[in-house]
Amino acid sequence: MVTLGIDIGSTTSKCVMLRGGTDIVATSLVPGGIGTNSPDRAMAEVLAKSGLSAGDISYTVVTGYGRSNYKGADMQVSELSCHAFGGRFVFPKLRTIIDIGGQDVKVVSLSEAGKMTNFIMNDKCAAGTGRFLDVMAGILQIKLGDIETLAAMADKPSSISSTCTVFAESEVISQLAHGSTVPNVVAGICESVASRTASMVKRIGVTEQVCMSGGVAQNGGVRRALEKTLGVPIAYSPLSQLFGALGAAIYAYNKLQHEK
Amino acid sequence: MVTLGIDIGSTTSKCVMLRGGTDIVATSLVPGGIGTNSPDRAMAEVLAKSGLSAGDISYTVVTGYGRSNYKGADMQVSELSCHAFGGRFVFPKLRTIIDIGGQDVKVVSLSEAGKMTNFIMNDKCAAGTGRFLDVMAGILQIKLGDIETLAAMADKPSSISSTCTVFAESEVISQLAHGSTVPNVVAGICESVASRTASMVKRIGVTEQVCMSGGVAQNGGVRRALEKTLGVPIAYSPLSQLFGALGAAIYAYNKLQHEK
Ligand code: SF4
Repeated sequence: MVTLGIDIGSTTSKCVMLRGGTDIVATSLVPGGIGTNSPDRAMAEVLAKSGLSAGDISYTVVTGYGRSNYKGADMQVSELSCHAFGGRFVFPKLRTIIDIGGQDVKVVSLSEAGKMTNFIMNDKCAAGTGRFLDVMAGILQIKLGDIETLAAMADKPSSISSTCTVFAESEVISQLAHGSTVPNVVAGICESVASRTASMVKRIGVTEQVCMSGGVAQNGGVRRALEKTLGVPIAYSPLSQLFGALGAAIYAYNKLQHEK
Repeated sequence: MVTLGIDIGSTTSKCVMLRGGTDIVATSLVPGGIGTNSPDRAMAEVLAKSGLSAGDISYTVVTGYGRSNYKGADMQVSELSCHAFGGRFVFPKLRTIIDIGGQDVKVVSLSEAGKMTNFIMNDKCAAGTGRFLDVMAGILQIKLGDIETLAAMADKPSSISSTCTVFAESEVISQLAHGSTVPNVVAGICESVASRTASMVKRIGVTEQVCMSGGVAQNGGVRRALEKTLGVPIAYSPLSQLFGALGAAIYAYNKLQHEK
């Protein structure tokens, strides 16, 4: 039995196709989220990769910020539940998920049994989200993918005192004008995201195993700064950005099992 | 006896020269605040306008965000106290001052006797400050001075759902792309600042007479939106942007009176 999970985020759309609730058949990740044709493109891509057709899919669950506008699924499920399912699939002892997306940050606590017991979310303020990193990368004229390497080259990370993206932007411009090196500023930016995220994580409690998900999870610079700030190792998998879609596909599978 | 008040803000420097604690001899307002030579330029300008020399000034009080780095004054006084003094000088029955500056928002409550009884401040988030308006004016490619006229031309003000400056920026760009007119977007921006400010004012209580001060007070678009949101008239004077400097000059005068 093949199930499909679609995760429509603010900046990307993702699909995971699952066979028998355990085998990942194919995945896709397409830039562009809610309000674009990316969900359809992500769907087309996952079908092409799998060699299957839409008719082969027994059940489709959609999740993510853009789920309520999507018509092609059998069911909508909240992204928090899907993240919990997807996270546990990859890390069976997972207790804390730190999900930093393009426009929001969510921290989810799981019980030993894997049930969501608490969560905290910021979707009102760009500080500490992927958007903050985008703005900073724009000022520095660097690619997001270069942040990890640049941060590792820092000898004296800048300290960025403003939390606000807008004020931090001015601070970074002034630091560069006063001679701070790009690696030091980049390291300061990573620490700024880490300290903002850490204060959210601490409000909900840090129970190991901890992992990061969402687009920013790929950013080793932020991940390492967050490990240092929280004082715990943070697990990461190349599947981390797909937790929502993966969880949705698992949800779809479980749903069919219950209906049998 | 001539006293001088200097107010060094985040984006402008202001001076007010006072004779006998009651007569305004001269004023100046120079763009550029803390970390620039604007305080000296504002000082030079007020001296030139008054025809007096530095030696004619009996006492100088400095206030504002940049006060602690300024060496040329006899005393530093917090901007909240100075705003209270300055506000009462212009509006003798004033009870609530809403000060929207370049980078912060302060709301000050005064007792019937004019003493500061409470205050609330946001200096962490650019939303609702002059900076928010700067960013929006930049996107719209309009001058801050045009906001009032443009807002008055709106037939259907846009609704901006994001409070965050960064997210509101994207929202405005997308509204323009979808055909919203500049006047409607400008009116929406004014309402956004007003609603954010109003929620601060309501936390501290709205006691009439209410006035606006700070750079944004000059912006009739925001002022009118705030009057509508709060449901009270908001007093404004061309001196509103000088309340801090004026209060500092009054403070200097009172200080000398007590020392006699
Ligand atoms: S602090 Fe800055 S980034 Fe956060 S909501 Fe305010 S304007 Fe946006």
